[in-house]
Amino acid sequence: MRIDVLTLFPEMFEGVFSSSILGKARDKGIVSFNTVNFRDYANNKHNTVDDYPYGGGGGMVLKAEPIFSAVEDLPVIGGESEQPVKPRVILMCPQGEPYTQKKAEELASEKHLVFICGHYEGYDERIREYLVTDEISVGDYVLTGGELPAMVVIDSVTRLLPGVLGNEMSAVTDSFSTGLLEYPHYTRPVKFRDMEVPEILLSGHHENVNRWRRQQALLRTWQRRPDLLEGRELTKEEKAWLDEWKREGLE
Amino acid sequence: MRIDVLTLFPEMFEGVFSSSILGKARDKGIVSFNTVNFRDYANNKHNTVDDYPYGGGGGMVLKAEPIFSAVEDLPVIGGESEQPVKPRVILMCPQGEPYTQKKAEELASEKHLVFICGHYEGYDERIREYLVTDEISVGDYVLTGGELPAMVVIDSVTRLLPGVLGNEMSAVTDSFSTGLLEYPHYTRPVKFRDMEVPEILLSGHHENVNRWRRQQALLRTWQRRPDLLEGRELTKEEKAWLDEWKREGLE
Repeated sequence: MRIDVLTLFPEMFEGVFSSSILGKARDKGIVSFNTVNFRDYANNKHNTVDDYPYGGGGGMVLKAEPIFSAVEDLPVIGGESEQPVKPRVILMCPQGEPYTQKKAEELASEKHLVFICGHYEGYDERIREYLVTDEISVGDYVLTGGELPAMVVIDSVTRLLPGVLGNEMSAVTDSFSTGLLEYPHYTRPVKFRDMEVPEILLSGHHENVNRWRRQQALLRTWQRRPDLLEGRELTKEEKAWLDEWKREGLE
Repeated sequence: MRIDVLTLFPEMFEGVFSSSILGKARDKGIVSFNTVNFRDYANNKHNTVDDYPYGGGGGMVLKAEPIFSAVEDLPVIGGESEQPVKPRVILMCPQGEPYTQKKAEELASEKHLVFICGHYEGYDERIREYLVTDEISVGDYVLTGGELPAMVVIDSVTRLLPGVLGNEMSAVTDSFSTGLLEYPHYTRPVKFRDMEVPEILLSGHHENVNRWRRQQALLRTWQRRPDLLEGRELTKEEKAWLDEWKREGLE
């Protein structure tokens, strides 16, 4: 997979692209990361990429021209049959569709992703309408630019590419796909200061351990994120636990 | 404000902490950023910070000891009355409360934030129970570690600190607080290739422009994020527009 990032702050990405899973995926040749400073495509002598909004009001607006030129100047990737591959052109913005794991999986099946990261300003609407294929928001909070959201999407997509994660870590993803939050984990020592590991985890009784974990995962989800249980089919066992907790007023 | 980040990948942060708004806030002395590699607090000869989970199963678990030691070794900040300030100790994890702009505002009123960033592994539950004050999730997608989520929270909090943003940019935050997505923006040229700016924005008629913008903000929110309209009181004007769009089948 080839990933291009259009940004005014390419220096934000180097540390992230070269560390941990992203760095390893790049070293293995599974993904390539490329940043483009779209200021290089400004077509005026002051190198400005933004301008005042038509209709007045505060704030600046990113001009269409430099963004169109930068995207059109990217190399075209050949697919399996050497047909040119149309890239997904992704705009990071608060107005985008809320990002989900499902979207990560969808993007992970592509060959070429292009991310457009604005900074404080709005985007000229023609970028949205005629250039981008996807608008993504990573959450309902205000960030300074699209750079951190792009890193979030790139990390979540890259780790899904075949060969990037070992088996051990793939398991983590699978556990997320149960639709429940994770159960509590404990490791050595058994007693740290005055805090002890629950006895059941030391019992060696696998069936009881698994039952406790299923129970804790459900309890945690119910207490913290009841929204995740909506529309989920509960097993008979899970229903019985929930009834018990409701009677006990654990909510 | 002082911000400490516990991470095994401190090199991921340098480019982000020194660029754009975060770099400026640091240069102005409004915030200080400090990364701590908690591997330096491993208390064994192999410098390991994780171990197998009690009760079996795949994956590794971050040990309690190095994290407790690293947090307890951080300097204590004096508040206005020179009383020591208790830091907020924030665990970045998928099980945390979903992050919101309201939470960003709450954290922006603190003097000292400590972020704990795990990586692939789970956390020993005693870290959650006895050390951290907040657990935060930036969204329902799987990431490799807590580093990118911590950057997201740090950016959203820092930009709210007094003196960090100019007036122009504060406006962007305010517009978010209307509870609607932003209306479309356009800047020069009027005609780019065949794509033109809507005539109304060139009319110079401020009242019509403002009305169009209110309308577009509502339309975009209704089409893309109807969830944001739930529980919001609509004006008479907004109700009339919505009724019209429903009749026209614009949904």
